[in-house]
Amino acid sequence: MVSISEGIRKEDRIKIEEILRSTDFFYEFEIATALEIADETIVHGEEKSGYFWMKAVDEGGLVAFANFGKNDFSVHSWELYWIAVDNRSRHKKLGSELLEACEARVKELGGKILWIETAGRPLYAPTEAFYRRNGYELAASLKDFYSPGDPKQIYVKVL
Amino acid sequence: MVSISEGIRKEDRIKIEEILRSTDFFYEFEIATALEIADETIVHGEEKSGYFWMKAVDEGGLVAFANFGKNDFSVHSWELYWIAVDNRSRHKKLGSELLEACEARVKELGGKILWIETAGRPLYAPTEAFYRRNGYELAASLKDFYSPGDPKQIYVKVL
Repeated sequence: MVSISEGIRKEDRIKIEEILRSTDFFYEFEIATALEIADETIVHGEEKSGYFWMKAVDEGGLVAFANFGKNDFSVHSWELYWIAVDNRSRHKKLGSELLEACEARVKELGGKILWIETAGRPLYAPTEAFYRRNGYELAASLKDFYSPGDPKQIYVKVL
Repeated sequence: MVSISEGIRKEDRIKIEEILRSTDFFYEFEIATALEIADETIVHGEEKSGYFWMKAVDEGGLVAFANFGKNDFSVHSWELYWIAVDNRSRHKKLGSELLEACEARVKELGGKILWIETAGRPLYAPTEAFYRRNGYELAASLKDFYSPGDPKQIYVKVL
C-alpha cells in the first residue's frame, strides 16, 4: 500500500538523496540542487520557502517525491521542479499518482497552469512520454538550451 | 559622453532603483527582486553570486544597467535578467549599446547563447521590438504564462 501525503520532514532528506541516486538520471550538481531545496523547505517550511512537496510512502518508507512552486512573476502559473521515483518502485504508476496529487494541490493553492521543464536528450525520452501520457503538451522546445543537441522541453497542463 | 563598464558598487544601488522607477514599467515586487539581486552582487561579488552586471554612466551618473547570469543546468546558455534605461536617457541607443556590451561579456565568460524572457502584454511591445532590432528571435511564446492574455515570450540570440 502506498500513501501520498504533503510536505517533507528532516528524516526524509536521506531517502530523497537515495531516490535521486537510484534513478541513475541526475548529475551530482543536480542532486545537490535538489537537496538544497529540501534543506530550505525543512528549515523554513513550505509557505516561506516557496517549495511545496508531495511524497509517496510504502511499507519500506519514502519511495517517490515531487516538488513544485508558484512562479513569482505570474498570477496563476506553477512549476514542477522535481519528480523522482525510486528505481525499485518503477512501473507501478506511482509517478502518475504523485503527479496527479501535485496537480490537485496546486489547484487547491490557487494555481491554474502547471509548467514542467525537462531536457530533450535521448535519456529523457521516457520522461517526456510520461508527461504526455499524463496530459501534458509540449509548449516549446528551446534548441540547444542545455548543450548542443539537448533542447529545453517545456510541457504544460491547464489544471 | 556615455561609458560602459562592468560590475556594480554599493553606491549604484540607489540609482538602480531610480532607473527602475523612472521607466513606469515594473511592479513593486519586480523592483524588490531586482534590488535583491543587486544586494547579493554587492555583498558576494559577481562570480560568487552568479549575477553579472554592465552599466552605462554619463556626466550625471548611472543611466542604464543590465544584469545576466549563466543557467546552472546548461553548459553554454546565459540569461539576461534585467535591462533598464533611465526614462530621461531614452532614444539614444543606450539600450542597444548596453545589450551589445552584455553579449560581448557573456562570450568572454564562455557563453554561447543568450536567452531573454519578457512579458507579452501590450505594454511590452516596445521591449519585444527592441530585442528583435538587436538580432533576437522569438524562440517560444508560452500562452497565458503571466496572466490571461499575457504570455511569456522567450527570445534568443546565438552569440
